[in-house]
Amino acid sequence: MISKNKIKFIRSLEQKKFRKENGVFLAEGNKLVSDLSNFFKCRILVATQQWMDTNKDIIADEKIYVEKDELSRASLLKTPQDVLAVFEIPSYTLSMDCPKNELCLALDDVQDPGNLGTIIRIADWFGIKNIYCSHGTADAFSPKTVQATMGALARVKLHYCNIKELISSLNDVPVFGTFLDGDNIYNNTLSSNGLIVMGNEGNGISKEVSELINRRILIPNYPQGNETTDSLNVAVATAIVCSEFRRRQL
Amino acid sequence: MISKNKIKFIRSLEQKKFRKENGVFLAEGNKLVSDLSNFFKCRILVATQQWMDTNKDIIADEKIYVEKDELSRASLLKTPQDVLAVFEIPSYTLSMDCPKNELCLALDDVQDPGNLGTIIRIADWFGIKNIYCSHGTADAFSPKTVQATMGALARVKLHYCNIKELISSLNDVPVFGTFLDGDNIYNNTLSSNGLIVMGNEGNGISKEVSELINRRILIPNYPQGNETTDSLNVAVATAIVCSEFRRRQL
Repeated sequence: MISKNKIKFIRSLEQKKFRKENGVFLAEGNKLVSDLSNFFKCRILVATQQWMDTNKDIIADEKIYVEKDELSRASLLKTPQDVLAVFEIPSYTLSMDCPKNELCLALDDVQDPGNLGTIIRIADWFGIKNIYCSHGTADAFSPKTVQATMGALARVKLHYCNIKELISSLNDVPVFGTFLDGDNIYNNTLSSNGLIVMGNEGNGISKEVSELINRRILIPNYPQGNETTDSLNVAVATAIVCSEFRRRQL
Repeated sequence: MISKNKIKFIRSLEQKKFRKENGVFLAEGNKLVSDLSNFFKCRILVATQQWMDTNKDIIADEKIYVEKDELSRASLLKTPQDVLAVFEIPSYTLSMDCPKNELCLALDDVQDPGNLGTIIRIADWFGIKNIYCSHGTADAFSPKTVQATMGALARVKLHYCNIKELISSLNDVPVFGTFLDGDNIYNNTLSSNGLIVMGNEGNGISKEVSELINRRILIPNYPQGNETTDSLNVAVATAIVCSEFRRRQL
């Protein structure tokens, strides 16, 4: 049985304001909740008796047993599953130094929560552990992003900061960005450290950040010069770029 | 001024049944409508006076001038733009031979309309002109897919057919598919013709189609063997595979 107030609280987590105020985020679904529970502190676990029975080892401050239709009322999904959970948002220490030693991503106002979630999942696949996000980038802990990450959120750290200041602080570190007049990525010298900057869905990388990028690259279309789609989706471009970086290292 | 009946008709095109019955689909937005109008016959064009004035050369059976708030009532988008259009669904002749001479994609029950749209856009970028879709794949002319293609729908042909029969008819043509136990794509011999099969979001490539795939490939994660996301989103995987095929040909 779940109270009306609890349902209201859970549903309020769709809004950043309430997530921030309470330092928590919402995750839904059997696999996602069970994956995240290994990494994040669970405040509230709402699930059917059957789910609780088969996932006894999950620790939560509060466990609420519900019928499926009760769960639907708390859920933000169109087709709710058997469980939802409220987790604590982790606090990371912001390190500006990571790009000196490893490959990192920087997102310059990526606005779509689904794109952000997909990018976090791509980062996880390609062993990128740190993503720097401009303050205009979507919130990594919004329900849509959390769902799209498919659990990758547990292994990738997101740092919201000023990208321009970040790059300015990195002396002699390669900073890559994709541009339509960049150099063919396939023939370019890539590195195993540095920063890959990806831009906004509509406007690409902002002017002030562009000026600080010292390695301008391009994903060539095929055949080159053919009339085609104007650009690739930002998550798709991120995937291709990361794949090409890691291919060189394998 | 737009009639209630016309609004009802336009909004009905969200459903496949009505698209099929009328042989038309809906597209919205300034750039998309103007791009598609070069390739598809426009039945109904609904736009503001200002948009019509700056896009005089677009030919349509019927042009309806509206105020922005009227357009909102016909629109399926959250934030409607200045124009929407009803286009005829093109009819292609189904050729089973294309994979013998060029690189083609086959989608085995890709269900999400957004993923399908993104895949069409990727195909366009990488010069893949034909996509074979199983009957369980999302409809390429659903509004969500059309919007996600960003105009690529004009240059890529989609053929709905039985993928198993298609592959069976292709003698000695390389048929690629991604599998978790496949061979590292980066070290594999790829070809400039053949079929790349991509599977369903949850279940991957179906068993009966898997059995016909003669080139099993894998997109390796990094570092290899690391704990990571279980899989990549199907559109993301399509992008990485297509990029790697085309890289070899540049």
